[in-house]
Amino acid sequence: MNVTIIDVAKKAGVSPSTVSRVISGSTRISAATTKKVKIVMEDLGYHPNLMAKNLVSRTTMTIGLLLPRNADEAFLDIFFSEVTRGILSKATRAGYDLLLKTGKSEQEELEAVTRLVKGRRVDGIILLQSRLDDTVIRYLQQESFPFVLIGRDRERPDILTVDNDNVQAAYDVTRHLLELGHRRIGYASGPLELVVSADRHEGYRRALEEAGIEPQPGWFVSTELVRADSTSAVRALMDRPDRPTALVVMDDLLAFSLLNSLSELGYSVPEDMAVFGFNDNPMSPVSSPPISSVDIGVYHLGLEAAGLLLRSVKGEQPEQRRVIVPHRLIPRESSQPIKVT
Amino acid sequence: MNVTIIDVAKKAGVSPSTVSRVISGSTRISAATTKKVKIVMEDLGYHPNLMAKNLVSRTTMTIGLLLPRNADEAFLDIFFSEVTRGILSKATRAGYDLLLKTGKSEQEELEAVTRLVKGRRVDGIILLQSRLDDTVIRYLQQESFPFVLIGRDRERPDILTVDNDNVQAAYDVTRHLLELGHRRIGYASGPLELVVSADRHEGYRRALEEAGIEPQPGWFVSTELVRADSTSAVRALMDRPDRPTALVVMDDLLAFSLLNSLSELGYSVPEDMAVFGFNDNPMSPVSSPPISSVDIGVYHLGLEAAGLLLRSVKGEQPEQRRVIVPHRLIPRESSQPIKVT
Repeated sequence: MNVTIIDVAKKAGVSPSTVSRVISGSTRISAATTKKVKIVMEDLGYHPNLMAKNLVSRTTMTIGLLLPRNADEAFLDIFFSEVTRGILSKATRAGYDLLLKTGKSEQEELEAVTRLVKGRRVDGIILLQSRLDDTVIRYLQQESFPFVLIGRDRERPDILTVDNDNVQAAYDVTRHLLELGHRRIGYASGPLELVVSADRHEGYRRALEEAGIEPQPGWFVSTELVRADSTSAVRALMDRPDRPTALVVMDDLLAFSLLNSLSELGYSVPEDMAVFGFNDNPMSPVSSPPISSVDIGVYHLGLEAAGLLLRSVKGEQPEQRRVIVPHRLIPRESSQPIKVT
Repeated sequence: MNVTIIDVAKKAGVSPSTVSRVISGSTRISAATTKKVKIVMEDLGYHPNLMAKNLVSRTTMTIGLLLPRNADEAFLDIFFSEVTRGILSKATRAGYDLLLKTGKSEQEELEAVTRLVKGRRVDGIILLQSRLDDTVIRYLQQESFPFVLIGRDRERPDILTVDNDNVQAAYDVTRHLLELGHRRIGYASGPLELVVSADRHEGYRRALEEAGIEPQPGWFVSTELVRADSTSAVRALMDRPDRPTALVVMDDLLAFSLLNSLSELGYSVPEDMAVFGFNDNPMSPVSSPPISSVDIGVYHLGLEAAGLLLRSVKGEQPEQRRVIVPHRLIPRESSQPIKVT
């Protein structure tokens, strides 16, 4: 039951334009009329602004987005603007606003989300990451509050998620390198506690095993090693008698570090090492050499997440609880066929 | 006059905890009491949620942020997450929420802002860019609605802005290169219609002229040329008899393109050309070679903008209408002293 300006006018016995003037604070309306109209507005629960309207309809027409605290990592930086644009595009078209929240710790994030839920500030929430035993997700589940996770939560397969098929994406990259003639293919990993790292490693492993190749532990480079001392990590890799001729690299930023170290040690890319990254950093096409990468469709991750959340907010049962956004391989100069030696 | 739960309890002749139970929908309270408390709440204008409270106090405790439509440019991508974090940090501490808006055209942006203002959705707005004869800014000025621009508007020096001193920053970079022994210093520019490009070019020019050096038109490389054909642009520069030994580059992404083309043409950085970028892209430290850059303090731009806006929202007259965030030069391998030939 939406109260309109007409209802107020009728009950107060004035014209709708008089109500409108009262709302806009016009001095042309007598104090008595103003008071009468205001009392009727109060009685009927009519308020001349959106927030008040929302109060009546009990929806806020707003969705919340939790910006994770560790978004100062370069990948999340770039991810964030694109995913936000995707969310905004969908939300705006549906008449929803987007409210941003963040916290410096998991505790602060939980407090921020609790205030959103308890204060009825939003109709639903989009999360950009999940932790093991995530207290924010646990809270939202307890409250049966609509939310969507961009990413994947291995422990809670029942929550609404939008994600890439990262196993398939890494499988595709590894197949691509195999088709270029590479056999000894290494893997440079992101933090292993992230589901995305584990998924991509699995896709890499599958493609190699299908090709009858046993992935060697010595072909594995961890992001921690690269961060600590990229040159030592690359030297250890290149000193192996069975050193890889190609690398699948979890993120283009990591690929940059590796390229830098390879160059320092006198190796050329792609001649001595083919490199295929992920996440298609804006720098990758202008790097020297341009870095092959996987476009994971970040804008569409945001778009789909907002779409899924809005269906959930309206109480619709989504056909699928996990939406997969397609990926796309973009081969560039950094990955070439193996040199015939 | 803020109505509290105590006022409601007094007028309804019940205890505050009973009011609280009514609010939380407890079934332990009789229907009659529930009805009585709800009527009093309505009479007093007390509502058990934040939006309702805002309705009473006529503030929304929310600020708006307009994400510019061309933010798909790589620099704005990275800029956006950091500036947002800065704004959120300040806003959250002051108890404010952040509402995001965008539009696909200037007209859509104007409509989005109009709805924010007319619908009393926010107390003030932060803009991330200004155009010549910007209709959004003109509208906000007409409405006397609080807003802050991150950047500078040459036509309207009276509006509240937070910015770097870009003239000084480019002056400092050019001085740094002069001190490294370079005399023929070129300038790679961003789009000339942006105030930031014009400001940085002016700082570059000033430093050279102070050193008694006339900047040659042939030392100027435009971003349009680089985008169209980076290699041709670099070849034209390097084929000059008075070719520069150093370049001041408006943005690290542009610096990447130039490095790539220099390398393709067989030139080395920093041996054949020193390069100093701007905006400290997360890729710059891991590039090969690592790129010298200027940290413009994006987080602090956001922090200061939110601070200035909140003072304006509260009706305080800020001491200065233009806040300057300090910059910091980060010399890396791409800028070295001139080779003695």
